[in-house]
Amino acid sequence: MKKSIGIIGYGNLGRGVALALQKSPDMSLAAVFTRRDPASISPLGGALSLPLADVASWRDKIDVMVLCGGSATDLPTQTVEYAGLFNVVDSFDTHARIPEHFSAVDKAARESGHLALISAGWDPGMFSLNRLYANAILPEGSDYTFWGRGVSQGHSDAIRRIPGVRDAKQYTVPVENALQAVRSGQRPQLETRQKHTRECFVVLEDGADAYDVERAIKTMPNYFADYDTTVHFISQEELNANHSGLAHGGMVFRSGVTGEQGEHTHIIEYRLTLDSNPEFTGSVLTACARAVCRMAAQGHRGCLTLFDVPPATLSIMTGEELRRHLL
Amino acid sequence: MKKSIGIIGYGNLGRGVALALQKSPDMSLAAVFTRRDPASISPLGGALSLPLADVASWRDKIDVMVLCGGSATDLPTQTVEYAGLFNVVDSFDTHARIPEHFSAVDKAARESGHLALISAGWDPGMFSLNRLYANAILPEGSDYTFWGRGVSQGHSDAIRRIPGVRDAKQYTVPVENALQAVRSGQRPQLETRQKHTRECFVVLEDGADAYDVERAIKTMPNYFADYDTTVHFISQEELNANHSGLAHGGMVFRSGVTGEQGEHTHIIEYRLTLDSNPEFTGSVLTACARAVCRMAAQGHRGCLTLFDVPPATLSIMTGEELRRHLL
Repeated sequence: MKKSIGIIGYGNLGRGVALALQKSPDMSLAAVFTRRDPASISPLGGALSLPLADVASWRDKIDVMVLCGGSATDLPTQTVEYAGLFNVVDSFDTHARIPEHFSAVDKAARESGHLALISAGWDPGMFSLNRLYANAILPEGSDYTFWGRGVSQGHSDAIRRIPGVRDAKQYTVPVENALQAVRSGQRPQLETRQKHTRECFVVLEDGADAYDVERAIKTMPNYFADYDTTVHFISQEELNANHSGLAHGGMVFRSGVTGEQGEHTHIIEYRLTLDSNPEFTGSVLTACARAVCRMAAQGHRGCLTLFDVPPATLSIMTGEELRRHLL
Repeated sequence: MKKSIGIIGYGNLGRGVALALQKSPDMSLAAVFTRRDPASISPLGGALSLPLADVASWRDKIDVMVLCGGSATDLPTQTVEYAGLFNVVDSFDTHARIPEHFSAVDKAARESGHLALISAGWDPGMFSLNRLYANAILPEGSDYTFWGRGVSQGHSDAIRRIPGVRDAKQYTVPVENALQAVRSGQRPQLETRQKHTRECFVVLEDGADAYDVERAIKTMPNYFADYDTTVHFISQEELNANHSGLAHGGMVFRSGVTGEQGEHTHIIEYRLTLDSNPEFTGSVLTACARAVCRMAAQGHRGCLTLFDVPPATLSIMTGEELRRHLL
């Protein structure tokens, strides 16, 4: 009996989950729930497209609901609300606010008797898992996380809010020298500026002053002021043609030591090179939906993260198959 | 209250576990058990050195026993035997025989009411975990595992058994072109010969024929015949001076696709660069000992692998600390 999966929010990420479900013979997409006109959406695989307002009537027909909204405004309320009705999975990625999100979702899920898994994806998600494993193995050492080369939605949005900017994309780019220093085992102390550069492609409004816009970008606190930033002004046509890709990736390192005097260095590197950030993230969320089905059936309630999930629970293979083929 | 850990077998690996326990404030090494003269061993941190024959009298004083013997002859019998007395962790690494080892250990541990975790280390171990996670996320794709550059104990032993050979070390070396092809997302079909080369440093007995020895190495079935093998004849002094290191490492890749037509490629790479193979493996076993303490206290019995262990269970940090600092 296939598990019945729902999706709330059918943008790039929701579509990534729907694609991943097509490769998961143990699960099927029952319905997509949307705030848009449901008739405007044709979910993959012939699943239903329904108004979000009707979601509560599906509470007994969905095994896991995958929440595919954004972390800024959607998930902080949606995951809490829908954990009252369903087992849920989300990709909440505002690192600093994970503890409070976890608490709120945990409370809602326990009260309603459901299981929630939050902050799945690649960072947080697979990168977090690698930080955890590597820290557990090498307690004496340093962590390094690099992102890119890939588009940062948050930084692109920040540029678009500047007066005179019509459109923009911002690439986060890891600094090659910093990567080499980490890989060499030196355990360098790296300032923000030494780890990443920021490359911006900006389309100006007619009559906007390029100098003013460039200065506004480069001096923007938090987003750009602490980085070496390059700004390229291009046409809308060029932005659409060359900068609409969804590729991303990054690397997590643990550089640690063992031995009586810390004389042996070990480098653990985990690297992702992704053609499509939302399709990869959707694939992680889909494996998490499988784990939530299984762990809910075992009696787990409340909120989890990938830290709490036995890895085998994510896989369609049996324990025996996993030991035979992947161990 | 610190957990009390025992070690059976105090070679390089046992010493690696003892070193890792010194960095683990929640565990302490109570005793080392050895088939050698206990007086000949001074375990790190002032732990006791005791005859293996006395181990049964420690059954109520050890929370987890870490078995540090070899996979060829020690662990197939030791892990089964000592799972009858203790919670145990081993690094059994004969991949083809893991299912039968798992069954035998599972039976012994269930009968005695203990918990066992087998095949921990880096391969099997951390590499296996990465294969599992990557396969669960990207069901459509190819796996690649490369080892080295590092000494293969099994291949070195095989050379030493050839008449006329006094001593030898064999390095497994990944082929750079193959790595590049995998990283590019091509999903190449790689023959054994295309993935690794084998480099041998051999000390001859007086009067041995170098030509015969080289031919015996290069034509040895399973070990060398399917590889491009280089043989260097050197003196014992040079072997001791330049080839006694314990560095190793390797890479696991998953190259997978998503999208309606598989149009997006994703590369997941996990890479280890280890100065000391036994100290890193010992560090993994030590984190596993922590997980076994906790899971045994939760009521788990029988045999597990890392596939069954919730990652947070390996870490000394609390769930809240992990979510705050590593998620």
